[in-house]
Amino acid sequence: MTGSLYKWVVTGAQDAHPFSDVALLEAMLRFEVGLAQAQGRLGLIPERCASVIALHAGTAALDPAVLARAGAQAGSLAIPFVQAVIAHIASQDLVAGRYVHFGATSQDLLDTALVLCTRTAVTQLEQDLQRAGRAATSLARRHARTPTLARTLLQPAAVTTIGFRCAQWAQALARCRRRLLHNADDALAVSLGGAAGNLASWGEAGPRLRAELARSLGLRDPGATWHTQCDALVGLSADTALAAGTMAKIARDIALMTQAEVGEATEPSAPGRGGSTAMPHKRNPVLSMRVLAATQPVPGLMAGLLAALPQEQERALGNWQAEMAQLPDVFIHALSAANALAELLDGVQFDEARCRANIDALQGTIFSEGLAALFAPALGKPEAQARVATLCTRAISTQTHLRDLARQHISSEAGLAAVSRAEVDAVFDLDRAARASAQQVQPMLDALSGS
Amino acid sequence: MTGSLYKWVVTGAQDAHPFSDVALLEAMLRFEVGLAQAQGRLGLIPERCASVIALHAGTAALDPAVLARAGAQAGSLAIPFVQAVIAHIASQDLVAGRYVHFGATSQDLLDTALVLCTRTAVTQLEQDLQRAGRAATSLARRHARTPTLARTLLQPAAVTTIGFRCAQWAQALARCRRRLLHNADDALAVSLGGAAGNLASWGEAGPRLRAELARSLGLRDPGATWHTQCDALVGLSADTALAAGTMAKIARDIALMTQAEVGEATEPSAPGRGGSTAMPHKRNPVLSMRVLAATQPVPGLMAGLLAALPQEQERALGNWQAEMAQLPDVFIHALSAANALAELLDGVQFDEARCRANIDALQGTIFSEGLAALFAPALGKPEAQARVATLCTRAISTQTHLRDLARQHISSEAGLAAVSRAEVDAVFDLDRAARASAQQVQPMLDALSGS
Amino acid sequence: MTGSLYKWVVTGAQDAHPFSDVALLEAMLRFEVGLAQAQGRLGLIPERCASVIALHAGTAALDPAVLARAGAQAGSLAIPFVQAVIAHIASQDLVAGRYVHFGATSQDLLDTALVLCTRTAVTQLEQDLQRAGRAATSLARRHARTPTLARTLLQPAAVTTIGFRCAQWAQALARCRRRLLHNADDALAVSLGGAAGNLASWGEAGPRLRAELARSLGLRDPGATWHTQCDALVGLSADTALAAGTMAKIARDIALMTQAEVGEATEPSAPGRGGSTAMPHKRNPVLSMRVLAATQPVPGLMAGLLAALPQEQERALGNWQAEMAQLPDVFIHALSAANALAELLDGVQFDEARCRANIDALQGTIFSEGLAALFAPALGKPEAQARVATLCTRAISTQTHLRDLARQHISSEAGLAAVSRAEVDAVFDLDRAARASAQQVQPMLDALSGS
Amino acid sequence: MTGSLYKWVVTGAQDAHPFSDVALLEAMLRFEVGLAQAQGRLGLIPERCASVIALHAGTAALDPAVLARAGAQAGSLAIPFVQAVIAHIASQDLVAGRYVHFGATSQDLLDTALVLCTRTAVTQLEQDLQRAGRAATSLARRHARTPTLARTLLQPAAVTTIGFRCAQWAQALARCRRRLLHNADDALAVSLGGAAGNLASWGEAGPRLRAELARSLGLRDPGATWHTQCDALVGLSADTALAAGTMAKIARDIALMTQAEVGEATEPSAPGRGGSTAMPHKRNPVLSMRVLAATQPVPGLMAGLLAALPQEQERALGNWQAEMAQLPDVFIHALSAANALAELLDGVQFDEARCRANIDALQGTIFSEGLAALFAPALGKPEAQARVATLCTRAISTQTHLRDLARQHISSEAGLAAVSRAEVDAVFDLDRAARASAQQVQPMLDALSGS
Repeated sequence: MTGSLYKWVVTGAQDAHPFSDVALLEAMLRFEVGLAQAQGRLGLIPERCASVIALHAGTAALDPAVLARAGAQAGSLAIPFVQAVIAHIASQDLVAGRYVHFGATSQDLLDTALVLCTRTAVTQLEQDLQRAGRAATSLARRHARTPTLARTLLQPAAVTTIGFRCAQWAQALARCRRRLLHNADDALAVSLGGAAGNLASWGEAGPRLRAELARSLGLRDPGATWHTQCDALVGLSADTALAAGTMAKIARDIALMTQAEVGEATEPSAPGRGGSTAMPHKRNPVLSMRVLAATQPVPGLMAGLLAALPQEQERALGNWQAEMAQLPDVFIHALSAANALAELLDGVQFDEARCRANIDALQGTIFSEGLAALFAPALGKPEAQARVATLCTRAISTQTHLRDLARQHISSEAGLAAVSRAEVDAVFDLDRAARASAQQVQPMLDALSGS
Repeated sequence: MTGSLYKWVVTGAQDAHPFSDVALLEAMLRFEVGLAQAQGRLGLIPERCASVIALHAGTAALDPAVLARAGAQAGSLAIPFVQAVIAHIASQDLVAGRYVHFGATSQDLLDTALVLCTRTAVTQLEQDLQRAGRAATSLARRHARTPTLARTLLQPAAVTTIGFRCAQWAQALARCRRRLLHNADDALAVSLGGAAGNLASWGEAGPRLRAELARSLGLRDPGATWHTQCDALVGLSADTALAAGTMAKIARDIALMTQAEVGEATEPSAPGRGGSTAMPHKRNPVLSMRVLAATQPVPGLMAGLLAALPQEQERALGNWQAEMAQLPDVFIHALSAANALAELLDGVQFDEARCRANIDALQGTIFSEGLAALFAPALGKPEAQARVATLCTRAISTQTHLRDLARQHISSEAGLAAVSRAEVDAVFDLDRAARASAQQVQPMLDALSGS
Repeated sequence: MTGSLYKWVVTGAQDAHPFSDVALLEAMLRFEVGLAQAQGRLGLIPERCASVIALHAGTAALDPAVLARAGAQAGSLAIPFVQAVIAHIASQDLVAGRYVHFGATSQDLLDTALVLCTRTAVTQLEQDLQRAGRAATSLARRHARTPTLARTLLQPAAVTTIGFRCAQWAQALARCRRRLLHNADDALAVSLGGAAGNLASWGEAGPRLRAELARSLGLRDPGATWHTQCDALVGLSADTALAAGTMAKIARDIALMTQAEVGEATEPSAPGRGGSTAMPHKRNPVLSMRVLAATQPVPGLMAGLLAALPQEQERALGNWQAEMAQLPDVFIHALSAANALAELLDGVQFDEARCRANIDALQGTIFSEGLAALFAPALGKPEAQARVATLCTRAISTQTHLRDLARQHISSEAGLAAVSRAEVDAVFDLDRAARASAQQVQPMLDALSGS
Repeated sequence: MTGSLYKWVVTGAQDAHPFSDVALLEAMLRFEVGLAQAQGRLGLIPERCASVIALHAGTAALDPAVLARAGAQAGSLAIPFVQAVIAHIASQDLVAGRYVHFGATSQDLLDTALVLCTRTAVTQLEQDLQRAGRAATSLARRHARTPTLARTLLQPAAVTTIGFRCAQWAQALARCRRRLLHNADDALAVSLGGAAGNLASWGEAGPRLRAELARSLGLRDPGATWHTQCDALVGLSADTALAAGTMAKIARDIALMTQAEVGEATEPSAPGRGGSTAMPHKRNPVLSMRVLAATQPVPGLMAGLLAALPQEQERALGNWQAEMAQLPDVFIHALSAANALAELLDGVQFDEARCRANIDALQGTIFSEGLAALFAPALGKPEAQARVATLCTRAISTQTHLRDLARQHISSEAGLAAVSRAEVDAVFDLDRAARASAQQVQPMLDALSGS
């Protein structure tokens, strides 16, 4: 309804996502029931009426398409929704009908329902991030010592290990998860203020009612009205956007490793995935693609949400409505990405032999930093670097290993007499090079499990 | 499916929007039929098979939800779609089944279908912009001479006329419409390149096939493959975003005029619109709100689309898929806004008496620029401005008309002896002040109708 | 250099902002000195050399324009910077020159310097937010009981108090400040990893060196390398963007109150502020404008930063460099806004009489919600609301106070016989209406001071 | 001043960019001189005074830092600027001083100066795009027939030629250039409206004055006031953002080709470019990086500009000022990118042997689409594709050329008896495969030169 099939594909065809029509209408009903019950308990409305509302609200016939049209016309989804619920309850019990949505305003209902759906989204997202994080941890452990090329600016830079890379992914995923969990406590707060935000409809009982409603919905009592200052909820979206960026980084890394010419990683295969309508030989990195496609729109969506923050006066004209419309999209995209990423990390295969072959193809030039460091005490850093750069060029052009050229160089250059052949050889020791990464993996994983 | 009810309300609950499931699948079928027919005409496939495809494609059973799930799994909506169409055609005629999607690749299908839906969107948008523009023109004509306050930085600045303001709106809407129409010719081009974009599957017949397909779909033949360089199509979205900004400007202006304390404009009323669940006295400016809410997300969506432009190599990993998912949203939002704006401009009422009262309440200080200009030859501009600023302060604090203070001033200040009382009075002539705006309205409207 | 004078004006002409050339080069030098000293203490380089570096680094001649040109050519500011520092130190002591930037890579230097400057920015921002918050608190206290119109969708909605509105501002500012402080601890971490991020150049001493460097710079030791996963630092920018949105909300509210027709607030005046080159009577709300102008670009900048998060492999091509270039802008804009906002809140004047007059002008219709609530038990909510809406329309059109119409109505309508005149009068009791807001101010402020 | 050294590096350290302080102040002076002269010619001010202004304006002492501070305080750069110019002219000729900025308002000055600087920017950008386009054309011509892998979703897809890829780049660059040139005519219009936009200060002479000023500044006379409806100018920024996306696509493609494992392209080298502070062997693709880094922020900047479009009433509070501050940044980034791209395309080297080796390494599987097409008439497309996919897997796992496996297959499968060995061999004919791309290059280039 609100987008296209193209978008549905990118967002993972999640039929039952946390902001689906069903979920949202259910959350709206939960607000009305929770409000009635809380008011009943506090004696603000007859308890009997609260019970009638609680008993029958769930059977109100609510057609999303009808509500959407009436809501667009009215300027608020709450208006036709509340009318429908009142009519339904009144058809059961005329008096109880009068106590539906009693004292509340549209925004109380819509914002709180949005928060309830967001809570589901955060829970799901957190779980997928955890699943992805566990998979990354497991990969880190398995490949802690597998040497592979570290690449900077898309060029081979040094030797690292696959496990070190995966441990960094795991750390970043854990940070995103921790951030979400930490801020969710703050952001998932009930919104209740009445027409002007000052709880006037409930007199002195207002703050108690808000606390009671919060308790019954399992949300935080914010201790105040926040309906035109949604920094906490938008902040939670920002946390989600940070997670999206982290997920895209991992997917991009894997996609680069799956390039045919690199061949260091293979995506898990599944029936019906990764083919091409034209090219039978293709194995497309579909899971990486899904993570990248689902996260790509998120920064723009966040720009929209942040730009909607300056909400005029006691209820904004346009900004509020736009905020509610955009916030779910951030989570829907992130959930699609998290789902694909978890599957990707669960099944990705790293090719140790190919990783090694890619290192070997560089003829030892990948160790140039160490060689320059070896020459630096004698030559000074700039001269050492220049000398090594020249040797590297020769290594590639003549397909001679840099170690051999370095051995020749120290024996022919008086200034490097202090450098021994053993020292040169040590520079090119792959195991030693990998150790710098390998030895950090376990502490990194330990820190994670402690967190 | 792909968003929430909150978004559906903001985007106007357009059930049958140009990128709806029905519309998109129909466009995809039109591509396959058009491709088969064009290939039939050029002898690239048996004409009989083309006819079978054309005859039966429309009856293929295509369930959006099933296709979306399979598409998400496969990484492309095209794969399950083409499979379904092949199966359907093959069930009618086994041989014809082989010539469905013949030689084409997923992106040919998806991009061209997107272009077809975009064409509908542009047509609808253009019509609503035209309707809004006509309404603005009519308001400009009716209120060409109605004096009202021009306001800068939210403060009264000078006298203008409502017609002058409306004529500017009409001009901006016309520019947006013209821009869209101009660029649509360029951007609404068929996409056909085959697997690698070089038309290889059709040998030397490729360019002729593309031309033939373009003709049959009523799209432009771009003369080349553009599937990884979507600047024209994203450019058309940018034109739409410019229109969104223009529409929001108009809506914001009207919303500010409808403030109770300003009272210069009233939105058209309609049953079920503008009420509040809590406050019976409220007449919310719902149409302005809808324009503002529907346009608010557009800049962020454009950021997403622009960021998706750098599409890798011969088909992008993530960026392409994200682009297709976001582009419809730009149009869906703009269409919702254009629809509300046209209704708003058709029905908005301006209150001439209130406009006049707001001018009068300023005690003539609104003419301070003219008074300063009158004093400037004698005093120099800085001194003239300082002098008039002081008189303005006194006019407000004593609720005395600035004209009276100015008359006193010229008679008591020797340096202003050359300024006559008639000259002072002319400065405060409201009709004269309004004339500066009024006289430009007709030429502005003439220029529009000529364009 | 990197922008225009137009931008400099909007960002407050802060000559000595935390990311100025002077500040950034100083931070870069602090990294090099801190690194040398930490390596000296750990015995990784000769302590004497560390001392030479520490002693002389500050006198290196570093011309920003020269460095920028060479940096653009080299693809990294670090390259010419390090060369210049090495040359300078080497000119003092040839051996010490070899130990400048020893084992480190460009990104260690540039990221850590960025973090150091960000720390200053966060401190300044936090102070300005505190100053603004204190001013809002003081306004809340002073005007706790001053009745004013609450407005929703730009229309009068109910009665609130100025103090309640200001207390909400104070709360939002406190949340922003708390969020910044909380996350700064996390985000302001040293970046040290060497070429591939695995601390290889320092062997087993790597983690100790990082900890030592962190201590000496007063930054957190992140316990790992984060140079391609900048979620924490970008998250701190997001917190800043949330603060920007909050500030813009306050400025917008005040700007709307300063409209001539509303007249409820006046900006503090100062020499040379708020005038117009053309209109002597104008008092432009310059401080509000500065807050709005300085915060407006922030959402787009955040979109850029979030889109830069997916940094390829062990150092990104383009995304990293773009991130470093954009992050300062978020803070520079927020600082400009915070500065203007603090001044605005320190000096804004609210006009109690005008607030009261705006309420009175509504002929009691602002109390329609209460009147409907009074009628609802007898009539049901929908009928009560409809009845009151009709009375409201009559009150405005006949300029009769709604209370008088309501009194007539209950005496003429049998169905409302149970409603007493005293109850009607109580609905229109302005003090009672204001009390709902007033009574919450002190608890809100108490909660703040406790936080 | 307005950013950081990090940004200056990314934006190419362009000291004398079109929006530099010098350029902007000069443009502001050109407005004042042009206005005075036009008014002199039309008899609106004494011609003698116009001459004095024209003669002496250039020698006004204008310190950007002083103006920025005073402008930030005043809320407008125009106020201190005009004061300074008046004071300077008045010191030469007291009467002439009175006619500086006569009748104009701040926005007339600031907007027109912005347009003048933008004109320079467009000219420079257009030239760099042309230079880049010529280089792409030349590469297309030289490598029209050089076979290389087309890659989709980062995987080998089919054979194309380097020339075909370069011709597409050239086309996209030409489209961007054409779009800019086309829209510049529209967008580069003088802004003159006076305080309220209605030219009131000049009475009936207003439109003539605008035309005369436009002529003297070489700008378009828009025939109306557009100061709060900047769609044309923001549209020109959008065109620039489209060009940025196009440039980033090309840079990304080249960067992927320069990966060590791919090795199909090498960036031009230059002294001081592409090195690493740590790794002597590194040749970083600095020019690609500069294009990517400089274009990365542009989508976010555009979001900011588009969000600033809804400018309130007759002059916006915040949005206008923010628009002026951001617009230059779009061009400054694009110019930096265009400059780097032109240098990149001028010097990039393609390695034909390596392109060929990358094709060969795929054991013929790259021709799978053709093979499936050969089998399809006999087997149906799905079965043909499945069969070929199996053969591809075997080709890779056994390192046997797919042609050999296909030959065996047709001889052993009765269903494929109609397929001849010659037909199979033709599928694997690299020259034939390349021809599909090669034959389109010349027509594509011809179309370009005709445009």
